[in-house]
Amino acid sequence: PEAEAERAISLFPRYPHPAVMMLDVPFLPFCALLGGLGLACMAFVSAWCQYWRGGFSWDGSAQTFNWHPVLMVAGLVVLYGAAALVYRLPQTWRGPKLPWKVLHGSLALAAFVLAVLGLVAVFRFHNARGTPNMYSLHSWLGLVTVLLFSCQVGAFPRGAPRPQHPAFPRPHVPFPQWVAGFGAFLLPWAPAWLRALYKPVHVFFGSTILLLSVASCVSGINEKLFFSLKNGTTEYKHLPPEAVFANTLGLLIVLFGVLVLGSLARPSWKRPDADSPDSRQVPALLEG
Amino acid sequence: PEAEAERAISLFPRYPHPAVMMLDVPFLPFCALLGGLGLACMAFVSAWCQYWRGGFSWDGSAQTFNWHPVLMVAGLVVLYGAAALVYRLPQTWRGPKLPWKVLHGSLALAAFVLAVLGLVAVFRFHNARGTPNMYSLHSWLGLVTVLLFSCQVGAFPRGAPRPQHPAFPRPHVPFPQWVAGFGAFLLPWAPAWLRALYKPVHVFFGSTILLLSVASCVSGINEKLFFSLKNGTTEYKHLPPEAVFANTLGLLIVLFGVLVLGSLARPSWKRPDADSPDSRQVPALLEG
Repeated sequence: PEAEAERAISLFPRYPHPAVMMLDVPFLPFCALLGGLGLACMAFVSAWCQYWRGGFSWDGSAQTFNWHPVLMVAGLVVLYGAAALVYRLPQTWRGPKLPWKVLHGSLALAAFVLAVLGLVAVFRFHNARGTPNMYSLHSWLGLVTVLLFSCQVGAFPRGAPRPQHPAFPRPHVPFPQWVAGFGAFLLPWAPAWLRALYKPVHVFFGSTILLLSVASCVSGINEKLFFSLKNGTTEYKHLPPEAVFANTLGLLIVLFGVLVLGSLARPSWKRPDADSPDSRQVPALLEG
Repeated sequence: PEAEAERAISLFPRYPHPAVMMLDVPFLPFCALLGGLGLACMAFVSAWCQYWRGGFSWDGSAQTFNWHPVLMVAGLVVLYGAAALVYRLPQTWRGPKLPWKVLHGSLALAAFVLAVLGLVAVFRFHNARGTPNMYSLHSWLGLVTVLLFSCQVGAFPRGAPRPQHPAFPRPHVPFPQWVAGFGAFLLPWAPAWLRALYKPVHVFFGSTILLLSVASCVSGINEKLFFSLKNGTTEYKHLPPEAVFANTLGLLIVLFGVLVLGSLARPSWKRPDADSPDSRQVPALLEG
C-alpha cells in the first residue's frame, strides 16, 4: 500500500511548480492570526456599544439592544468560526475522533446559546418600545441564519464509519460513543446510510451559515448606524468617528469570515476522511 | 497508467456508502436551476425599480439611482456567477482551454463593465443631490468588492503549463495564445512561477468577491428600503408589499450566491488540472 501511495504522489505531484509552495501556509500560525482577528472583532463591537451606544443593560432600554451586536458577533461569527475549524487542527487527524467531536459540539452549542440570547435581546428591546419585529431584510436573513444553525446543532452527524488507511493507524476505541449524550451526535441509532448522507450536508451548511452570518452582520451594522447617527454633524453621511469605527468593525467581520471560509475550503487543511464526497484529496490524505 | 488509475479508485472509493451517491447531482441540470434563479433575481430587481421606485433615467434624479441595484445584481451577482462557473462545465475539461478562457474572460469583463456603470449611476445620483459619497458600510464594502474585482480582471492568469495525463489527451494547439490580447491573460511574458503562484490566488479571490457582492447587495437593499419606505402605512416596519418583495429579492440573491459558491467548492465538479494546490482531487481527476 505504501508503494501505491508513493506512485499516486509522483503521478499527481503536489506542487508542479515550486513557486506554489509559497502559498502553503501551515494551519497553526494562520489559526493564531484568525484568533487575533476574532478578538479584534469582539473588541471593536464591545467598544462601539460601550463607548458610543451607552453600554449594556437588560431592562428593555436602548442598552438592552446593545447586547444584540455583541452576542451575535461573539456567537455567530467568532465562536462559530472556531467550532468550524476544529477538524482543521492536524492534532485531530489521528487517533480517536471523540474528544474533538465533543470540542466541536461544545463550541457550536456555546455559539448557538449566545446567538439565541442575542435574538432575545433585540426582541426584548423591540417589545419594550412597541417596535415591530422581523420586518427588515437584515432580520429575515438573520432569522434564516439562526434557524439553519439550529438544524445543524440539533442534527449533529455521528459520521460514517471510516475505512482504515495505512498512513493513519486508528486505534480501536472501546469507549461507547453514545455516552456523549443527546445533541453531541445525530441520533445514535440512526442507520449508517443516513449518517453517510448527512455529513456532506452538515459540511455544506456549515460554510453557508457563516456566509449568512457575515451578510447579516454587515446589514445590521449598516442599519444600526442609519438609525443611530441622525443629527447634524454626527449624521452617518458626515462620517463621524463612530461611523468610521463601526464600518471598520464590519470590514473586520467580513475579513474574518472570508479567512475562515477559505480555510475550510482549502484541500490540504482538510481532515483526511473517506466518508464524504468532499474529502477526495488523495495527495493531501497521503502526505499526513 | 490505467491500471494505476484503477488502483487509485479502489484504494480511495469515491462513495464509501451508496447513500452518498444521492448527493451527486450532475452539474448541467444544477446549472439550469442556477440560470433560472439568476433570471429570477434580475426580474425581481428590475420589477422593484420599475414598479415601486419609478423606473429608470440617466439625468441624476431618483430614477438614475435605480440603475444601481439593477446593474449591480446583473454584473456582480448573475454574470459574475456565470463567469465563475465556466470551468465547471464538463465540456471545458478536454481539448484546448483557450475558447473557454475567452468565454470566462468575456463574461467577467461584461460583469465588470456593468458593475462600473452601476457605480457611475449612484455617484451621479449623489452628486446631483449633493449627498456625500462613500460613507456607509454598504458603500465601503461595495467599493472593496469592485476594487478586488478590478484586480482580478486586470491580472488574469494565463495558467501554468499542465502535465499531460493519459486520461486527458490534450492536442497540441499551435494557436499563439497571446493573440487573444490584453486583459485575456496575465502578461503573456510573465514567468511560469508567477503564473503558477497567481492562479490559486485568482481562484480564492474569485469566491471571496462573490461573497462580498452578496453581503453588499443585502446591506444595500436593506438600506434602500429604510430610505424609501418612511411614510405612514408604507413605512418599512409595517412591511408593505414592496418590503416583502425586496426582502424576497435579497433572499434570492443570497440563495444564488450560496449555490454558486457551493458549486465552485464541490471537488467532483472541478476541472481536472494539476497546476494548483486547489485541484488535488485525484478520483475526480480520474473519473472524467
